Amino acid sequence: MSQDKFELSIERIQSLTDGIFAFAMTLLVINIDLPSTPHKIDPELLGKYLFSLWPDFFHYVLSFILLSLFWVEHHQQFYYIKKINRKALWINILNLLFVALFPFSTSLMGDYSSQSIAATFFISNLLVIKIFLYLNWVNAISNKELIVSDINEEIIFEKKSHHLFFIITSLIGLVLAFIIPEWSTLPFVLTFFHRSILKNKKKLYNK
Amino acid sequence: MSQDKFELSIERIQSLTDGIFAFAMTLLVINIDLPSTPHKIDPELLGKYLFSLWPDFFHYVLSFILLSLFWVEHHQQFYYIKKINRKALWINILNLLFVALFPFSTSLMGDYSSQSIAATFFISNLLVIKIFLYLNWVNAISNKELIVSDINEEIIFEKKSHHLFFIITSLIGLVLAFIIPEWSTLPFVLTFFHRSILKNKKKLYNK
Amino acid sequence: MSQDKFELSIERIQSLTDGIFAFAMTLLVINIDLPSTPHKIDPELLGKYLFSLWPDFFHYVLSFILLSLFWVEHHQQFYYIKKINRKALWINILNLLFVALFPFSTSLMGDYSSQSIAATFFISNLLVIKIFLYLNWVNAISNKELIVSDINEEIIFEKKSHHLFFIITSLIGLVLAFIIPEWSTLPFVLTFFHRSILKNKKKLYNK
Amino acid sequence: MSQDKFELSIERIQSLTDGIFAFAMTLLVINIDLPSTPHKIDPELLGKYLFSLWPDFFHYVLSFILLSLFWVEHHQQFYYIKKINRKALWINILNLLFVALFPFSTSLMGDYSSQSIAATFFISNLLVIKIFLYLNWVNAISNKELIVSDINEEIIFEKKSHHLFFIITSLIGLVLAFIIPEWSTLPFVLTFFHRSILKNKKKLYNK
Repeated sequence: MSQDKFELSIERIQSLTDGIFAFAMTLLVINIDLPSTPHKIDPELLGKYLFSLWPDFFHYVLSFILLSLFWVEHHQQFYYIKKINRKALWINILNLLFVALFPFSTSLMGDYSSQSIAATFFISNLLVIKIFLYLNWVNAISNKELIVSDINEEIIFEKKSHHLFFIITSLIGLVLAFIIPEWSTLPFVLTFFHRSILKNKKKLYNK
Repeated sequence: MSQDKFELSIERIQSLTDGIFAFAMTLLVINIDLPSTPHKIDPELLGKYLFSLWPDFFHYVLSFILLSLFWVEHHQQFYYIKKINRKALWINILNLLFVALFPFSTSLMGDYSSQSIAATFFISNLLVIKIFLYLNWVNAISNKELIVSDINEEIIFEKKSHHLFFIITSLIGLVLAFIIPEWSTLPFVLTFFHRSILKNKKKLYNK
Repeated sequence: MSQDKFELSIERIQSLTDGIFAFAMTLLVINIDLPSTPHKIDPELLGKYLFSLWPDFFHYVLSFILLSLFWVEHHQQFYYIKKINRKALWINILNLLFVALFPFSTSLMGDYSSQSIAATFFISNLLVIKIFLYLNWVNAISNKELIVSDINEEIIFEKKSHHLFFIITSLIGLVLAFIIPEWSTLPFVLTFFHRSILKNKKKLYNK
Repeated sequence: MSQDKFELSIERIQSLTDGIFAFAMTLLVINIDLPSTPHKIDPELLGKYLFSLWPDFFHYVLSFILLSLFWVEHHQQFYYIKKINRKALWINILNLLFVALFPFSTSLMGDYSSQSIAATFFISNLLVIKIFLYLNWVNAISNKELIVSDINEEIIFEKKSHHLFFIITSLIGLVLAFIIPEWSTLPFVLTFFHRSILKNKKKLYNK
């Protein structure tokens, strides 16, 4: 019975999630190295130096938007979830563990973008976050006590297709990581538009 | 119809916004370099060294207050906004992306304040944040579903003039960045008082 | 009488706690050193280098999960606590002081895992956090005004046994720190499962 | 009239305050320098090295507790404040500006504790935070619209004497900063107990 009375509210999980996401997203900027006092660069080379940082800037933008989308997805799931159990708590903790690791992966990818191992690390980190988000959803919908009752099949189907879309993108990225690591993170830009891509498909299907 | 049921509440956007602003504002201080253990400076030169940091201190204060004012503006907009849509979500994500980038721009400006490129980067970052705040407002007021009904024309006019004031200041700053970059950020001090400057004008107009 | 009117709500303590835990947990990742621009490593050695970081990764995961569990425990206590007094405030401040110190201890353990002094520092930090959590609970249940009335003996007993379990683990760790420091933090992995270990015991006892 | 309708709620100010305080408090730990990969110290000297960090540890504890107490004071003031105006907003922004600067001052004091200038910087930072807290309170109680009506004279007197106590401590510290800077921050330990010191005095007075 003590299972029924899990003494942790959804509000607290959401508060910790907001904190960790906000901090991880802001920490991404630290990875854009600006040589400071003891190693200051020649002022005349500043423009050239900033330009050479483009992989850092690209991965800052990519990672920031991907984390935002994961954050949105997390809260959209919790829009339907009304209670959590211990299993959901662990899924969320492990999810946040990989969210907090993501600034490190971004830094690795920004600094060593031509290395397969850096690209593999970065993409695997993304994939693991997504898998835990998927497990959180599966755990919730498989347990009538945890979700609101008015959830319909269409929403469940929609969320599943989004997950599938991301996993396929990740697998393409992982293959690219071994051929042209510099471009392996580019397919993720597609995931920014996954909703509109999938929506167009659904419209066709609904006709 | 799934458009109507956007599963993300205003409260969550505000919570993430508060988090990112708070961290970005606190992270600004990291840019004031204090040489630590391996590079420690001669204690007798500490006073001289701290004094040489004045561009860092000035830009810390300037950036902190500008971020505060953007944060205030964000919440004042959301005082009238009762719902968000996907477009508003993206505007907010991109806005936060440039807010989180701002500690980098401040660091760049503090360390290389005599370089046009640093000043241009800093001012452009400010301008982009402001433009996204403006788009957020335009998107909301152009959609009756998103805003509260008792909003009056005067408020709309007031907000627009504030935006215009900031954009003009930025353009002056950008011109100065190519002539005397060290002083190009000074006009932004005026924006601290923009409300009282504009209010005085309005009083004259209302007579 | 001013004791009765302590002008600080539970909500505020929870908000600060969520903030400090979220930042401390995200800050752990900073301890995984990635040599950047001036000290960049040879790209071909990247794989080997990342592999050499395994004590950092292990302690990142261990520390992240332990902090999560402390955070959960904190909120589970506050599920029953309805008011705080000045003593509870101080217990919470000192608890958070050691939570915020924990990224330093993790960094120390990750970088010098073969040193007894690093292991002792790390385990002592954990133990002190746990002791303050215990004091917070003891302070609350010993004061009828502070807790909700429907709390039963079983919950009190359960929480006490959890604390005892952790303290025994810590003492084993402290002994190991002087014999084989590299393995001294391993017993804490057991505490991830303490709830199920203790629950199984209780089930046997309840038969 | 737009003065009456200040579009920023107390809740938002409190949320930003909690974020900045939590982050500043967690950032303090970054100032305890642990030489990492390229500059790693000889493992056998680790104990000696950690011991040499005692001014860093002392100032970490001191600064963490002082920030906690300022945070408590801030929320205790807002317990009585029901509305804010533009003046209160500015006082709060400037207060947070110096709160966010405090990790820098702590780092300066930890690294150069034998220098008068470091001690003066640290103590002045504390004093300025306290002065803005005082101004926030004075601004609120001098405006019937901003505070709750059931506030009594005793509370107002109590808060004023606390401020006076802190200011006197700061002045003693500033004098010490020029004679024995290493000990100039010690008097602030007294402020941890100011409430009980002042309460005892009040009890005598009430008899």
